[in-house]
Amino acid sequence: MENEKLHNIRHSLAHLLASAVLEKYPHAKLAIGPVIETGFYYDFDFSGGPTPNADDLKDLEKRIKHLVKQTLDFSGNEVSVSEAKEIFKEAPYKLELIEEFSGDGKKLTTYTVGKFLDLCRGGHVDNTKEINADAFKLDKLAGAYWRGDEKNKMLTRIYGLAFENKESLDAHLKQKEEAQKRDHRRLGKELDLFTFSELIGPGLPLFTPKGTAMRDAIIEKIQSIQKNFGYQKVTIPHITKKDLYEKSGHWTKFGEELFKVKGASNTEFVMKPMNCPHHTQIFASKQRSYKDLPIRYAETTMVYRDEQAGELLGLSRVRSISQDDGHVFCAVEQIEQEINNVVSVIEQFYTALCMFNEGDFWVRVSARDKKEKEKYLGKEENWNRAEDILEDIVKKKGLPYKKVDGEAAFYGPKLDFMFKDAIGREWQLATAQLDFVMPERFGLEFTNEKGEKEAPVMIHRAIAGSLERFLSVIIEHFGGAFPVWLSPVQVKVISIAEAHKEYAKDVFEKLRDIDIRVELDDSDESLGKKIRQGKLEKVPYMLVLGGEELEQKKVMVESRDEGKIGQKTLEEFIELIKSKN
Amino acid sequence: MENEKLHNIRHSLAHLLASAVLEKYPHAKLAIGPVIETGFYYDFDFSGGPTPNADDLKDLEKRIKHLVKQTLDFSGNEVSVSEAKEIFKEAPYKLELIEEFSGDGKKLTTYTVGKFLDLCRGGHVDNTKEINADAFKLDKLAGAYWRGDEKNKMLTRIYGLAFENKESLDAHLKQKEEAQKRDHRRLGKELDLFTFSELIGPGLPLFTPKGTAMRDAIIEKIQSIQKNFGYQKVTIPHITKKDLYEKSGHWTKFGEELFKVKGASNTEFVMKPMNCPHHTQIFASKQRSYKDLPIRYAETTMVYRDEQAGELLGLSRVRSISQDDGHVFCAVEQIEQEINNVVSVIEQFYTALCMFNEGDFWVRVSARDKKEKEKYLGKEENWNRAEDILEDIVKKKGLPYKKVDGEAAFYGPKLDFMFKDAIGREWQLATAQLDFVMPERFGLEFTNEKGEKEAPVMIHRAIAGSLERFLSVIIEHFGGAFPVWLSPVQVKVISIAEAHKEYAKDVFEKLRDIDIRVELDDSDESLGKKIRQGKLEKVPYMLVLGGEELEQKKVMVESRDEGKIGQKTLEEFIELIKSKN
Repeated sequence: MENEKLHNIRHSLAHLLASAVLEKYPHAKLAIGPVIETGFYYDFDFSGGPTPNADDLKDLEKRIKHLVKQTLDFSGNEVSVSEAKEIFKEAPYKLELIEEFSGDGKKLTTYTVGKFLDLCRGGHVDNTKEINADAFKLDKLAGAYWRGDEKNKMLTRIYGLAFENKESLDAHLKQKEEAQKRDHRRLGKELDLFTFSELIGPGLPLFTPKGTAMRDAIIEKIQSIQKNFGYQKVTIPHITKKDLYEKSGHWTKFGEELFKVKGASNTEFVMKPMNCPHHTQIFASKQRSYKDLPIRYAETTMVYRDEQAGELLGLSRVRSISQDDGHVFCAVEQIEQEINNVVSVIEQFYTALCMFNEGDFWVRVSARDKKEKEKYLGKEENWNRAEDILEDIVKKKGLPYKKVDGEAAFYGPKLDFMFKDAIGREWQLATAQLDFVMPERFGLEFTNEKGEKEAPVMIHRAIAGSLERFLSVIIEHFGGAFPVWLSPVQVKVISIAEAHKEYAKDVFEKLRDIDIRVELDDSDESLGKKIRQGKLEKVPYMLVLGGEELEQKKVMVESRDEGKIGQKTLEEFIELIKSKN
Repeated sequence: MENEKLHNIRHSLAHLLASAVLEKYPHAKLAIGPVIETGFYYDFDFSGGPTPNADDLKDLEKRIKHLVKQTLDFSGNEVSVSEAKEIFKEAPYKLELIEEFSGDGKKLTTYTVGKFLDLCRGGHVDNTKEINADAFKLDKLAGAYWRGDEKNKMLTRIYGLAFENKESLDAHLKQKEEAQKRDHRRLGKELDLFTFSELIGPGLPLFTPKGTAMRDAIIEKIQSIQKNFGYQKVTIPHITKKDLYEKSGHWTKFGEELFKVKGASNTEFVMKPMNCPHHTQIFASKQRSYKDLPIRYAETTMVYRDEQAGELLGLSRVRSISQDDGHVFCAVEQIEQEINNVVSVIEQFYTALCMFNEGDFWVRVSARDKKEKEKYLGKEENWNRAEDILEDIVKKKGLPYKKVDGEAAFYGPKLDFMFKDAIGREWQLATAQLDFVMPERFGLEFTNEKGEKEAPVMIHRAIAGSLERFLSVIIEHFGGAFPVWLSPVQVKVISIAEAHKEYAKDVFEKLRDIDIRVELDDSDESLGKKIRQGKLEKVPYMLVLGGEELEQKKVMVESRDEGKIGQKTLEEFIELIKSKN
């Protein structure tokens, strides 16, 4: 298996890094050195001697290359716990690990490469000649708590990138450079979309007027598409008595991870980490008949999940998550139509983002692992039928898909939509999930055509997913140059000189009145500077207004994507921009 | 003073009630009997003998009337603590009160009327002849914990209504009856606007699609008015580290009452009970110049305040409060213009509700209590100027107003808008408050024209206030028959028979596509029943479609407020309904 080979290369390089570090820094104490997505790292304790800095990585890299070229063998050896303790008696972190691994009569393994010996479960190349010395690179240094616990000592982590060949490493470095240019945290600041406050805390973004305009554009786009499929907005509070989650089963499953809320009264509240249990209670507030189904609730609302501070990253990973959530309550016979509708909404939305092109996305039909059926709840016949329906829908629609066993949720199978961004990274964004379990937990029911009580099926669906994560993806995908409908500022009206200010204000107000997101720049800066500023802000259209425009009651249109378009009447321009929405 | 006279009447009646109760139920133990807004109550412990039920109130009322007619004097007497203890030795609740009142050498008072003696601070009529025996009524019985503490014994509370004359009592009873008919909790259920769930908890309403449509109509109406004054939407999370409130000063002031939040991480979070501190952090995220001011943020977002379960009431008093919030950051010279704009938004919004008519509202200019200037923060000159500006604005606008000293917030003066509802009750809804304090607490600043740093002034403004409370008021004000723009369902399309279903669906979809809130009733019920249902739901327009309409491609329009309007083309009807928005 390719992945195993790459894994072994990376793991072996972690050993070689440790070996090189000990050569140069004999006082270093070794902690752990695992494989990660793009390479490997190793954690060291350099206390009691010098600590390497970024400049020292070059030298360490050279030392590793030297080791690689010596075509050294990796050889393993089984040892008892007491032998291991003797071998690593001067390595306190290893001793702690040995203590932890040691069961009754358990055996541990050590691996040697060259003069370096490490405690290790194995998974290496046989010989360093299998490692391409041009396909790895020491990447960076970082601080990391021993075992990730902030109560422990802070160690020094050295990261390495490693691939099978130089081309893959170069491609990765190029993608990384491109990603840095597009980093949504940098662009978010430059375009003034969101901010964080020390006083409020990490993972809790504040959206400025421009960021909010983008959020609203996304919410409204989805809403305008899905209202044609009968979705209706509802509104729920962000907290609940814990009773709701005891009933749903989330309390037992996720109790520890939930945000608990306590006020002056005695009630124990919890912040909602998802919206489905609340939505079931709106369904349950009335008697429902088969004639009322499907009932489709939609709401974009924040849910709260605690994440370790170290895992928070810009908008990609936050504590306040705006879910673009939707729940359909329907009869089993309606599943096909309803999932079809969800897929249509997804198709229309991602088409508006030009992300629904062949080769740019695929659908994962996430089914049960049939070898472990006991892991899943719900009737066998429903599962089979539902998995067939899901596969059938994407097949009939001609969408590229893969059926992946074992990816279903325990409560039902799902469709996950995977999208490739402009620099080749893949993201799971939209999803449609069937749920046979929750309706029964909450005793939901409707009266069917025979007059009997029947439990509805629930469909959980997200089009953009978490708005924060979605924004982080599309800010980087578009590099800040968004489609017109999504741009925080769609038009910038620029006056050339004092004499044109009034006309510019007039044009600005006319556009604002018809809900076009427009800004007015009638400052006394030079025209060149104003236009440069507009370009920096990646505004799709600038309307430059001088004497000629004023006289002829026209606007000079400059497009971000198409360059100078020329003079138009305001009506013509409005028609043009509306055609882009 | 009128109020004092009425207070004395009510207080005296509480004594007479206790006297009548002891006549009939000698085993009763007396607790307390204060005056309340519409009369009085008295709490009794009936354990060890019979407890009166609702039917017994008539008899007690008769006994009180009998006492009133005897023209009995109220006479007070000063007693020492030990004398009081002797007098009330068989009255355990009174003994507890005596214990509490007793300081070193303090004197207590007792009051006698007829044969009845009670521990009391005074405030009675001199003689029962001052009481109009036709102007009071025993109202109802309820359970109440001794001292309001649920750890104590549950006592029996008897409520009485009391006024100076029969007309006032009758007017109150009529208003009460009318209010019951309009009760927003009943209408909310009948019109399917909101619901509560036992599992989620009291004070945490869930808004159905129809309730959400009303919320959105309110939010959009305000947004569409205020965007012309430069308000921009922002988005903030519902929690914050407590650091934010330590800085704002709310932690010291309201720490106990705040909802504390605790997750798996170590950070202490708090749910926001207001939005201003969060909004300051968006202002503070960039360097600001005088050219950028005023900056106006608006957001409708839920804040959370814990209320005792017993105080929660439908939407009037909730724990999740959707604030229609706005904050302006401006220079002192801009206050007048900005407050003027807020007043214009209020005027336009309440005009759209037909609530801005002469006699239906007034403005309270809430100023400092000049005798206690030390209670207020901020510069003397700013206060004087700001109070003058506020008064000046309402005067110039010709709005009915009263300047009320002592009603200002500690951080600045304000305008409070008081509205009368359809049955004569008065509600404070909109508000505009100046704030000189918060910007300085957060170190907010902008560069003024001289290049110096200067603190902006903040204006807090709410147009509808809390959406929940606002909805409770207008549901009762309109009795569920809302203006067209606010109606959860604006149009109901009704097919007469099978043959007209397709045409009805077509009309329904055309209206839905242009964002008119429309429902289709193409059920097989009789036409009469369908129309009755629409009337029950108080839908402003019904379009009844039969053979003639289908043939002529017209719609038969029936208006809730104007009766049968007759046949129109769909375009004519759309024009008609749009003119009502």
